[in-house]
Amino acid sequence: MPPAAPILLTPGPLTTSARTRQAMMLDWGSWDDSFNQLTASLCEQLLAIINAANTHHCVPIQGSGTFAVEAAIGTLVPRNGHVLVLINGAYGKRLAKICKVIGRRFSTFETAENQPTTAADVDRLLNADPRISHVALIHCETSTGILNPLSDIAAVIAQHGKRLIIDAMSSFGALPVDAQHVPFDALIAASGKCLEGVPGLGFVFARKESLANAQGNCHSLAMDLQDQYAYMSKTGQWRFTPPTHVVAALHEALLQYKEEGGLPARHKRYANNCQTLLNGMARLGLRSFLPEAIQAPIIVTFHAPKDPRYQFKTFYERVKAKGFILYPGKLTQVETFRVGCIGQVNTIDMHAAVKAIADVLREMEVLDI
Amino acid sequence: MPPAAPILLTPGPLTTSARTRQAMMLDWGSWDDSFNQLTASLCEQLLAIINAANTHHCVPIQGSGTFAVEAAIGTLVPRNGHVLVLINGAYGKRLAKICKVIGRRFSTFETAENQPTTAADVDRLLNADPRISHVALIHCETSTGILNPLSDIAAVIAQHGKRLIIDAMSSFGALPVDAQHVPFDALIAASGKCLEGVPGLGFVFARKESLANAQGNCHSLAMDLQDQYAYMSKTGQWRFTPPTHVVAALHEALLQYKEEGGLPARHKRYANNCQTLLNGMARLGLRSFLPEAIQAPIIVTFHAPKDPRYQFKTFYERVKAKGFILYPGKLTQVETFRVGCIGQVNTIDMHAAVKAIADVLREMEVLDI
Repeated sequence: MPPAAPILLTPGPLTTSARTRQAMMLDWGSWDDSFNQLTASLCEQLLAIINAANTHHCVPIQGSGTFAVEAAIGTLVPRNGHVLVLINGAYGKRLAKICKVIGRRFSTFETAENQPTTAADVDRLLNADPRISHVALIHCETSTGILNPLSDIAAVIAQHGKRLIIDAMSSFGALPVDAQHVPFDALIAASGKCLEGVPGLGFVFARKESLANAQGNCHSLAMDLQDQYAYMSKTGQWRFTPPTHVVAALHEALLQYKEEGGLPARHKRYANNCQTLLNGMARLGLRSFLPEAIQAPIIVTFHAPKDPRYQFKTFYERVKAKGFILYPGKLTQVETFRVGCIGQVNTIDMHAAVKAIADVLREMEVLDI
Repeated sequence: MPPAAPILLTPGPLTTSARTRQAMMLDWGSWDDSFNQLTASLCEQLLAIINAANTHHCVPIQGSGTFAVEAAIGTLVPRNGHVLVLINGAYGKRLAKICKVIGRRFSTFETAENQPTTAADVDRLLNADPRISHVALIHCETSTGILNPLSDIAAVIAQHGKRLIIDAMSSFGALPVDAQHVPFDALIAASGKCLEGVPGLGFVFARKESLANAQGNCHSLAMDLQDQYAYMSKTGQWRFTPPTHVVAALHEALLQYKEEGGLPARHKRYANNCQTLLNGMARLGLRSFLPEAIQAPIIVTFHAPKDPRYQFKTFYERVKAKGFILYPGKLTQVETFRVGCIGQVNTIDMHAAVKAIADVLREMEVLDI
């Protein structure tokens, strides 16, 4: 282990276990049977997490989470489809931008960054515009940490006979979703988030019939999930060179996920991290941006101290020197910073992080919190 | 190191050094300055390899090499452009498929898989069709190992005032290209090939003016190299989550590349590997598919033995059990298999691989070679 390894309190890439990183010490042949088995096992374990094996295929794809989101929209929304994008943060806006760039018709519904979209909103919007074929929703919006009411929204969309695409990037594996109770066409996540793998691949749970009907939809060869799945199911292999070490790390991370106790245990650890953080920061006088009721235990946005001696850059560097990497805010209206609760960290780390933050604020003589 | 780590004699992913893999033992924050410096250093070192710092930008992109190829065509060929694709193998065909899927007009010129495209061919084709704006060429076609005469073809294209896009996936870093003598708009390669990093990212050397004029060309948000570069040059960061461990591994691999003696040393080691392989296999009676004059020292295609007791699957598994992973053939007309010369391997490994192949053929009682 190199000497300087600060703990990442970020929304991913995040701190992984030594065992997960150790899985990258082996070079795999991408054509080899043993690697194909690794990929198959990966997909099987991922499907089990959301109870989707009967209804959905898991299609892994090279690149970051955004690549997987673009792949899902490009593959599953027909060229004459129309996407309603629900926005309360930067990732919702990015989703709309994807629709625009790849040429899918779309409309947007935006609420404030501290206001979840409601099922009633969606019901009204679907009644008002019958052109809408798909609704795209960010489950947990990483730009604030806000949780949108997925189940209720999914139920309304299904009542209208429309299709749901869920960006579950920062929630998958930590917040429960059961594909047999939450109807969706696509749920998208990535390796380097709550599963605690390293970044480098995304994956899409795609409804089997929707994927089967998606031939020719996609605007891209590399991002065509229908083609990716068809080839993989025929050969066991990825169409194009897979990030073998990233795949091996994620597979190892999934074994640890299971050993820890699966989703309930992961959720509990993150919820404890989040509560420890919120309590500790409250004692310092630092206010969280969101009320607790809509705060997902993934990442917390805090208002920056009002004191003119506070500068994020200095604050960040000093906290980093004490062993913790924080995350900048992403709000345009108010100055904030963010602290992640996910990754191979526990409440002891969160206590230590709060202490480091307290020490730095004192050193910087930041008094007016 | 896990017990079973066969040597990969494949065109990538390939065998990397322990030091390169060790660089993946650290988790990096993707927003952190130290990671931005890593990315900047990576691009600087890559540009130096082809003497392109004055004329080209290096734009890294998440995903496999094919993602980078699609990104280069999508970004640098205007929507009303026309690509002439030069084909003598599977990767040339893939390039044409990319043009088709993303909606760029294209025409193809195909020669046999053992016949390089010539500059005279290209001259004739450009004279015959003034619609052509760009020519796309595979430098070393991995499906056979054939080397196309890049310099001569580039000169002809420049004379015609047209633009060249080079897929240098399997040659970059091992075969010399000087951007000041070989005019091109884009040269594309990836982390897991002759630089001996791990797979998971590609990069495109894009001519500065061409990239500056490419705004709005791209069919994809994630693959838009102009947007990727603009954001990176402004912030030092990747637009979307980078494969941090893959970046760190490539950076470490580049330090070793330099220490080994850069391109001349890398080229010499691979050429020695290739010659050792060719000589050893010839002694076994195994014939290479290509004549030596057009054989790049990257990967060699061998005719499969004629003996009915030869089955590739068994052959492959038995050679693997002796510690070497070979690669299947990719030709439709003749039965072949391939052996890579690249990666962290030397002539001792190649001698050992030939011995393993000899032993397996004897054990399988394959007599009619």
